[in-house]
Amino acid sequence: MEKKSYEHISLERARALAAAILAKAQYSDEHASSMIQNMVDAQAQECHSHGLYRLLDCYNAAKSGQINLTSQPVVTDHAASVVKVDALQGNSLLAFEKGLVLLAEKARANGIAAMAINNSFHYSALWWEVEKISDLGLVGLAMSPTLPFVAPYGGIKPLLGTNPMAFSWPRPGSDPYTFDFATSASARGEIEIRRRRGETLPPEWAIDSEGNPTTDAESAMSGALLPFGKHKGSAISIMVELLAGSLIGDLLSCQTAPLNTSDTKNITHGELIIVLDPACFGVSYESAEGLFKEIEAQGARLPSQRRRTAKQRSDKEGLLISSELLQELDQLAKD
Amino acid sequence: MEKKSYEHISLERARALAAAILAKAQYSDEHASSMIQNMVDAQAQECHSHGLYRLLDCYNAAKSGQINLTSQPVVTDHAASVVKVDALQGNSLLAFEKGLVLLAEKARANGIAAMAINNSFHYSALWWEVEKISDLGLVGLAMSPTLPFVAPYGGIKPLLGTNPMAFSWPRPGSDPYTFDFATSASARGEIEIRRRRGETLPPEWAIDSEGNPTTDAESAMSGALLPFGKHKGSAISIMVELLAGSLIGDLLSCQTAPLNTSDTKNITHGELIIVLDPACFGVSYESAEGLFKEIEAQGARLPSQRRRTAKQRSDKEGLLISSELLQELDQLAKD
Repeated sequence: MEKKSYEHISLERARALAAAILAKAQYSDEHASSMIQNMVDAQAQECHSHGLYRLLDCYNAAKSGQINLTSQPVVTDHAASVVKVDALQGNSLLAFEKGLVLLAEKARANGIAAMAINNSFHYSALWWEVEKISDLGLVGLAMSPTLPFVAPYGGIKPLLGTNPMAFSWPRPGSDPYTFDFATSASARGEIEIRRRRGETLPPEWAIDSEGNPTTDAESAMSGALLPFGKHKGSAISIMVELLAGSLIGDLLSCQTAPLNTSDTKNITHGELIIVLDPACFGVSYESAEGLFKEIEAQGARLPSQRRRTAKQRSDKEGLLISSELLQELDQLAKD
Repeated sequence: MEKKSYEHISLERARALAAAILAKAQYSDEHASSMIQNMVDAQAQECHSHGLYRLLDCYNAAKSGQINLTSQPVVTDHAASVVKVDALQGNSLLAFEKGLVLLAEKARANGIAAMAINNSFHYSALWWEVEKISDLGLVGLAMSPTLPFVAPYGGIKPLLGTNPMAFSWPRPGSDPYTFDFATSASARGEIEIRRRRGETLPPEWAIDSEGNPTTDAESAMSGALLPFGKHKGSAISIMVELLAGSLIGDLLSCQTAPLNTSDTKNITHGELIIVLDPACFGVSYESAEGLFKEIEAQGARLPSQRRRTAKQRSDKEGLLISSELLQELDQLAKD
């Protein structure tokens, strides 16, 4: 049983640390800038798995040579309501940033628009992207395939990705309604943590290599994760493969496996983002606010509430980071 | 414990029976025509709860006076990628049919388009609508609020609808990939059936009127259904309320309750349909087909497979219908 110690660092120190490591890895300034913003935001919201921890991934990815560190994403005005962005094997965040302006413009002009990002190395959480959309007063829905760790419902081996789906709804004068989750019952990282701690898994999280249900974390790691919500979550996960893979002519999760030639698993794939303009549809923000109020009045939480609370804490106290990770990052920046 | 007997009827007899009852209820020929097509299709695919059984609902709805039986839905070319249809308190199917031509045209011209249907009485399954879209070689995603029977995850009382979401992906030369499900763990009808049979419910289906988990069907009926897939299904259900309610300026599920002045629960609400044109996005149908093949090779089933098998059976043997329902419908048509 591990016991981690944590400490607080300032926003400035976090940014400087990230900048030093990304520069050392030879990411272009533009790429580094969007990545720093993203990772520091995630750290401040205590999404540790998408926070500064990812600097290690991004550093290793750069060293593996599989990622384009200086790519200039190519934004194409593809159709009246479609933006296409070719990330050219570079990080997804700059591709998203470069395409967002035109995407928002099209959504405002036409009511709804979509952006397909192709050939991108995607390591970041989708909530960050859909909240950039709701920050503009628009509604965002984003999804992407990942790596094949998940068996379809009723199946016996890995095929689907953990395929996240994220949604953000702007709330005038308030934080948006945002959800962002894997369409698997759990993240692979959660199973790894329980394996290291010697804990058993909840039922319905995983199957073993024979396709039988298991609560043993070791067996699960060599078997497959299961979709959330049985056949329904599985159907949604397949939809993500279809929309953010086949539809946009990019890789399915299962197609990434044979391409994975390094330990860092830096496979580039696609992402689909759909944006709707509430103003065009005749939105009633009042009814949405009424719904949120009723949900909270029942004692239920809105999704992302944990992130909001962490952000408030971070604004006051600084960014919480594990001492072990901080030491590792400091070392990497210095070496 | 009830034991039902079933028999087979021809397509022609089913159509004639539906036509007689809808004419008697005074639906316009245009409304009746779309409703007959829909109900007979559902019966042929053995979706009994959306099949000829709905003739009773539609008849009672007509008698209650809450539904416009002769409305001519108003289709508006609202924005470059948005169609709006006002169903004028009439049945949703004619509204869908009338708007679909322009919706498909916009999706083909612009890559993506949306249709908002307002003020519609919606009793039909969404798979039928999204398959009309995939029949055109387009991808369809549809959703709508319903009536407030479902508590949000972590909540204690009904607030959300059973909020169905349906998706259809065209498969050249084959039946489309389609899913259509309630975002509740179960349908209210399934709980009612178990109540009548004196059976207990699976865990995680429902809570009692105090907000406590229950497996007792009687307590569940006076309590609330639960969303599928815990907080994730709940978040999706809320998204359906926002997109097909607030966004399009129509009712949330919880707003229908006070308006429900008759036993027939014929509340009109909205629906949102999003259509994408695969040809515009650079689709790879091959990768999608490869995925479906892998899913089936694992012994997992694609969604809607039960419907396809039933359809083949019905084409050969006629439409399966419960003798009790047939008698009731025959009587209603004759009276």
